[in-house]
Amino acid sequence: MTTADRDAPVLTADELRELDAHWRAANYLAVGQIYLMSNALLREPLRPEHVKPRLLGHWGTSPGLNLVYTHLNRVIKQRELEALCVWGPGHGGPAVLAGAWLEGSYSEIYPDVSRDEAGMTRLFKQFSFPGGVPSHVAPEVPGSIHEGGELGYSLAHAYGAAFDHPNLLVACVVGDGEAETGPLAASWHSGRFLDPVHDGAVLPVLHLNGYKIANPTVLARMPHDELDSLLRGYGHYPLYVEGDDPARVHQDLARALDEAVDLITDHQRAARTGEATAPVRWPMIVLRTPKGWTGPGEVDGLPVENTWRAHQVPLPEVRENPEHLAQLERWLRSYRPQELFGEDGRPGDDVLACVPDGTRRLGSTTYANGGLRLRALPLAPLEDFAVPVDKPGATAHSPTGLLGDLLARLMADTARERNFRLVGPDETASNKLQAVYESSGKAWQERVLPVDENLDAHGRVMEVLSEHLCQGWLEGYLLTGRHGLFSCYEAFVHIVDSMVNQHIKWLKTAGELPWRAPVASLNYLLTSHVWRQDHNGFSHQDPGFVDHVLNKSPHIVQVFLPPDANTLLAVADTALRSRDHVNVIVAGKNPGPDWLSLDQARAHCARGAGVWDWAGTESGDGPDVVLACAGDVPTQEILAAAGLLRRYLPELAVRVVNVVDMTTLLPSGEHANGMSDAEYEGLFTADKPVIFGYHGYPWLIHRLTYKRTGHDNLHVRGYKESGTTTTPFDMVVRNDLDRFRLVMDVIDRVPGLAVRAAATRQRMADARTRHHRWIREHGTDMPEIVEWQWPG
Amino acid sequence: MTTADRDAPVLTADELRELDAHWRAANYLAVGQIYLMSNALLREPLRPEHVKPRLLGHWGTSPGLNLVYTHLNRVIKQRELEALCVWGPGHGGPAVLAGAWLEGSYSEIYPDVSRDEAGMTRLFKQFSFPGGVPSHVAPEVPGSIHEGGELGYSLAHAYGAAFDHPNLLVACVVGDGEAETGPLAASWHSGRFLDPVHDGAVLPVLHLNGYKIANPTVLARMPHDELDSLLRGYGHYPLYVEGDDPARVHQDLARALDEAVDLITDHQRAARTGEATAPVRWPMIVLRTPKGWTGPGEVDGLPVENTWRAHQVPLPEVRENPEHLAQLERWLRSYRPQELFGEDGRPGDDVLACVPDGTRRLGSTTYANGGLRLRALPLAPLEDFAVPVDKPGATAHSPTGLLGDLLARLMADTARERNFRLVGPDETASNKLQAVYESSGKAWQERVLPVDENLDAHGRVMEVLSEHLCQGWLEGYLLTGRHGLFSCYEAFVHIVDSMVNQHIKWLKTAGELPWRAPVASLNYLLTSHVWRQDHNGFSHQDPGFVDHVLNKSPHIVQVFLPPDANTLLAVADTALRSRDHVNVIVAGKNPGPDWLSLDQARAHCARGAGVWDWAGTESGDGPDVVLACAGDVPTQEILAAAGLLRRYLPELAVRVVNVVDMTTLLPSGEHANGMSDAEYEGLFTADKPVIFGYHGYPWLIHRLTYKRTGHDNLHVRGYKESGTTTTPFDMVVRNDLDRFRLVMDVIDRVPGLAVRAAATRQRMADARTRHHRWIREHGTDMPEIVEWQWPG
Repeated sequence: MTTADRDAPVLTADELRELDAHWRAANYLAVGQIYLMSNALLREPLRPEHVKPRLLGHWGTSPGLNLVYTHLNRVIKQRELEALCVWGPGHGGPAVLAGAWLEGSYSEIYPDVSRDEAGMTRLFKQFSFPGGVPSHVAPEVPGSIHEGGELGYSLAHAYGAAFDHPNLLVACVVGDGEAETGPLAASWHSGRFLDPVHDGAVLPVLHLNGYKIANPTVLARMPHDELDSLLRGYGHYPLYVEGDDPARVHQDLARALDEAVDLITDHQRAARTGEATAPVRWPMIVLRTPKGWTGPGEVDGLPVENTWRAHQVPLPEVRENPEHLAQLERWLRSYRPQELFGEDGRPGDDVLACVPDGTRRLGSTTYANGGLRLRALPLAPLEDFAVPVDKPGATAHSPTGLLGDLLARLMADTARERNFRLVGPDETASNKLQAVYESSGKAWQERVLPVDENLDAHGRVMEVLSEHLCQGWLEGYLLTGRHGLFSCYEAFVHIVDSMVNQHIKWLKTAGELPWRAPVASLNYLLTSHVWRQDHNGFSHQDPGFVDHVLNKSPHIVQVFLPPDANTLLAVADTALRSRDHVNVIVAGKNPGPDWLSLDQARAHCARGAGVWDWAGTESGDGPDVVLACAGDVPTQEILAAAGLLRRYLPELAVRVVNVVDMTTLLPSGEHANGMSDAEYEGLFTADKPVIFGYHGYPWLIHRLTYKRTGHDNLHVRGYKESGTTTTPFDMVVRNDLDRFRLVMDVIDRVPGLAVRAAATRQRMADARTRHHRWIREHGTDMPEIVEWQWPG
Repeated sequence: MTTADRDAPVLTADELRELDAHWRAANYLAVGQIYLMSNALLREPLRPEHVKPRLLGHWGTSPGLNLVYTHLNRVIKQRELEALCVWGPGHGGPAVLAGAWLEGSYSEIYPDVSRDEAGMTRLFKQFSFPGGVPSHVAPEVPGSIHEGGELGYSLAHAYGAAFDHPNLLVACVVGDGEAETGPLAASWHSGRFLDPVHDGAVLPVLHLNGYKIANPTVLARMPHDELDSLLRGYGHYPLYVEGDDPARVHQDLARALDEAVDLITDHQRAARTGEATAPVRWPMIVLRTPKGWTGPGEVDGLPVENTWRAHQVPLPEVRENPEHLAQLERWLRSYRPQELFGEDGRPGDDVLACVPDGTRRLGSTTYANGGLRLRALPLAPLEDFAVPVDKPGATAHSPTGLLGDLLARLMADTARERNFRLVGPDETASNKLQAVYESSGKAWQERVLPVDENLDAHGRVMEVLSEHLCQGWLEGYLLTGRHGLFSCYEAFVHIVDSMVNQHIKWLKTAGELPWRAPVASLNYLLTSHVWRQDHNGFSHQDPGFVDHVLNKSPHIVQVFLPPDANTLLAVADTALRSRDHVNVIVAGKNPGPDWLSLDQARAHCARGAGVWDWAGTESGDGPDVVLACAGDVPTQEILAAAGLLRRYLPELAVRVVNVVDMTTLLPSGEHANGMSDAEYEGLFTADKPVIFGYHGYPWLIHRLTYKRTGHDNLHVRGYKESGTTTTPFDMVVRNDLDRFRLVMDVIDRVPGLAVRAAATRQRMADARTRHHRWIREHGTDMPEIVEWQWPG
């Protein structure tokens, strides 16, 4: 394209008039939502009582978002695209709501907010109004898959939506504030993992409006050549649209969008016909327009348009200050609403000329209501992967190794549908899931060397050293109707604490909207866990993610701690079939004893917690003590303790309880999986001492059970932040979760036992001393520990 | 510099020999640490029993780190620099330990690991050995301020160390794996906030060794021109050093380091003499050398050197496999240890030729033991900022507004010392701390427009829309001996959950090392909190950070919830004077009632929790019920409930307890601030109902108090994940924390009151209904709520 071409108008006068009408209408509606609760069409002069008593919302970003909505409409309609838009500056809710209302999507879902004057009035009043709609692009907004609250994840969500959707164009508006965040900065490289053959395209629109809440932005202020260099360094081909003259910007943006879509189409055609093999450098648009464009230029003598002062509500005192009121009225009338809306309040033909039809509308695309597109996974029978267990603890397997086999099959069985992805930060093999590579390589578009293994331009295993990208990609993938699993080192999943917060909030709210179809759950496999960080030590030890997610809306969250390989298969199957949940599975990767056959594992998972009769010594009179456990390492130590008790105190009636689903501990009224009090007491008794070996921070068990009868009898051992690079058994000794300490706990807590069992207690203390001595000398665990087997 | 210059050797033959000797010695020591527990100098042929039984550690990154250590030594010594190095790939602990041992720093701190054969043997054996040292660059490593565990924060730490240290050069090795993370990607822009006048310099060394655990890295595989474009886009001037011929790489790296230091010196001189005003584009080095360089080329027929297989332990079966053992011996002898170490095991003259003296050594710099450099803050008397409170609740102030005045004074009083910074993600003004701008502007090196306010190339308020950068900068600043405060929206501080995990782990371990001097605490001001997110709603509501930090080593963490303005001043003063803690302060920014005079606030904070006699109605017989509260909004609701009880049930003996320091609720054995059981029962009674209004998730209170007598009588109200864009009072109603519900709770729980107070209970229920009706109609809170004042 020559320079002359670049300046030639691409829009006819009619098109320009129509696009500008749509944009002005959207701007009018955005301002109306922030300010008005009546007199929506300005049929009478504006009076204070037309204005909301509390003015809340974000104007600054809205005109830019409106402009993008307008122009996406045009290009979608003209080219019959399937498109979705992720609105990074989603706090500009008024803009996206305006676009959805104008195109009719909004009224189809919310008929009381009809596309007429009455509906417009409701649209205005409900915005940021108690009982109304939130100020952000939230689940309530048609067409959205991205909450505009916490910034940084828009581009990762956009890529997640595009993976395995070859016909989809995902536009993504990235705010220049958001662009300063780490997750967003990392997301620019996502194109290096995007397959032009099987994936759709992402078109980033970097919106440089220059200011955040109170500051200029880095990307808007750095020199142009540096910005250009940065974006090319990210692997993009930037197209620039800059200005504050609407007519000119309309022409330039239309031209840039045409060019971008042409380039995308060319790239995809070349890749899909096999013409091209080099990595694609995808186009993007840099849109530089004023913050709060078309809003008040000055308020109270201070500049507002094109400054940070336009961020929220530019005229804050409209009800009290007549000058502000007059200025608001001038502002609203500057859009000439009478040209835009009919007598009945319906948008006029000019306004609607650019709007596409049906599900091509951004507010009606099924991609943004992914549950509508969801197909169940073809999960093979677990019998194909399970290990035989005739006698508890006689064999050992790597739980995640078995899961790897299941994932390999699943990858193979979804090869045509392409609706499952495995994501992880460079840890798939470290987490012992490498069997999956038999069916799918790792997504990779850059250069491949002979020494490389399992890289594949069409792979559906995603590995990048960024938990943020893994999480963001997967969220976008799930919300657009597919399935996935995130495998992560347990400690470092805290990196995405805040992202999972927001996803759980999304699922909670979406679940309350009848029009949103259920989506596949977000499944975490946390492994390389706190007890087995042999190479890495203290920095890699943190079991607190379970605590974190259990603070959130409990009905969304499920937490599984499978004690062995077959049980991991059973919970993974449950998780992969579930909908609208966040499932956290914590499992070991090192070979550990097999306790349960597949059938036993299934039954155990169905109950969530149960007595392991074979491990206890109680007769019909009930137990003297309950040994409870959750997690693979605590289960092994509890069973070892049960074995020691069996040997040294055979007259003691011991019950062993294993908890695989942590939420069963919650009262039945607080979680669907929660046990009734009767069930709880049936397992743990109401009055006997319970020694509980737990995988994570011990107080979590107290927090889950504080309402239960007998909770004063709970004595919990778990991780108490004592760690370093050491042996597996030394880790449990350091945290008082070892078998010897657990036996001492039993002796100390069963009434009357202290005197009778003094010799056994001393024997246990001696064993701990023996451990300390041995390990300092040999650097390994004692043979009696390494070779231990369940004695039953 | 011409091309010819670029190829000309900068090192003499002697220098080259000496540098290579140092590098080979460091490599030898790194391999020795991973493998050997005896025969350190290979005086006899290597036998299996010389090798550790468990082989743990990371070889792959070590030769590159060693190379950087060697060459930094040279440039530091030659130019008499004050320097510090942040080792991003800190899992290469063997390398940094090797460098510190060679230069003597290590033995000075740990005399038993002497710089001779016995010490070398200990150095080898202790590495990743139970009871020894961790495998990473951890607090135990002299010269370190950065744990090499969780990746992504090295560059932010480096900038934090450089701020306000004008004479310091901070080198920072960035691994190409780490470079894929979000926080690291954002950190490259930190130079745009670095003041060449008052700050030191950061010299990033991007080490492209090509592979992560199991994958190629993005930055190593993207085309060179794209990488160059990216780094220039980040505002850097990249110098490239590439190769696998040691002699050539030595020359090139020496040349690049000379050029980089020259450029830095020129930039600083120009800025400091006022010659230059344009933003500086700082040099950086791109070092491309093989992963596992000089290690085994092939093992068992598979390539290892220069592949991901070199990541951890290249020869895994040395004790069992004679071929591996022989290969290890050849590898170790390839460094020619007999040339490097004397008969006594001490490094020879060639090895030590490049090593600087005293505190110029990287392992001995006082900058990395920042407590040695720490000076107490000049904190003004709180009387200068406090508000008079003659009668509780008669006046109202913004707590953070008052704190802003304190911070403004502190900024002014540290203008010369420059040892205090305020960081925040674009929220300083939003959080009502804007008074601070009277004394310091916001750090900013890019272009300034006439419309901008408070930007200052020399400012010490740091605002960037990245919580990761705020946290990383501040951690680096604190660990090198200065003070700071991080002001953040409460919900979004979860973005740095994993970073604060690591910082708490660092402080815990550092606190156990007698040679590490105490550093200033990491202080959080969390505001714009869950109850006051009027503009933003659900996505901005999360009070769970308190739960998160309280899972960590409790003696490091303090959590304060000041109920009013004067109390915030008192806790801020405590926090800013404290050492080696993480202090979390949650406070309101909106004007709220003043409850305590400064003296009362100080006394209250000193106790951490106390009875507010003026608010209760008990006589000498003790209370019928305790109303407890923590947090500004719950305190107001509890007091309003107390007022309602006073009016409608005046005969009820009510006690009001306010908790300002959450850790007082913990048992005294678990936290230094914890109450004894007697103190706890003195406040809360052992047997009376306690209605507790808490700022965050209610179960936290149960988790802190489950060991207390009477904890079954606790009934806690708090945030239960019910939120949207609505009014302040509607938020508390939605979460059952409102005054009316609290009175109903009292009536439901005080024995015998239900019948007697049925009419009052109905009145409360009616008030809630009235609220729902009013708010739906008016969109505001009822006048009786807005105008409420403490009736006492």
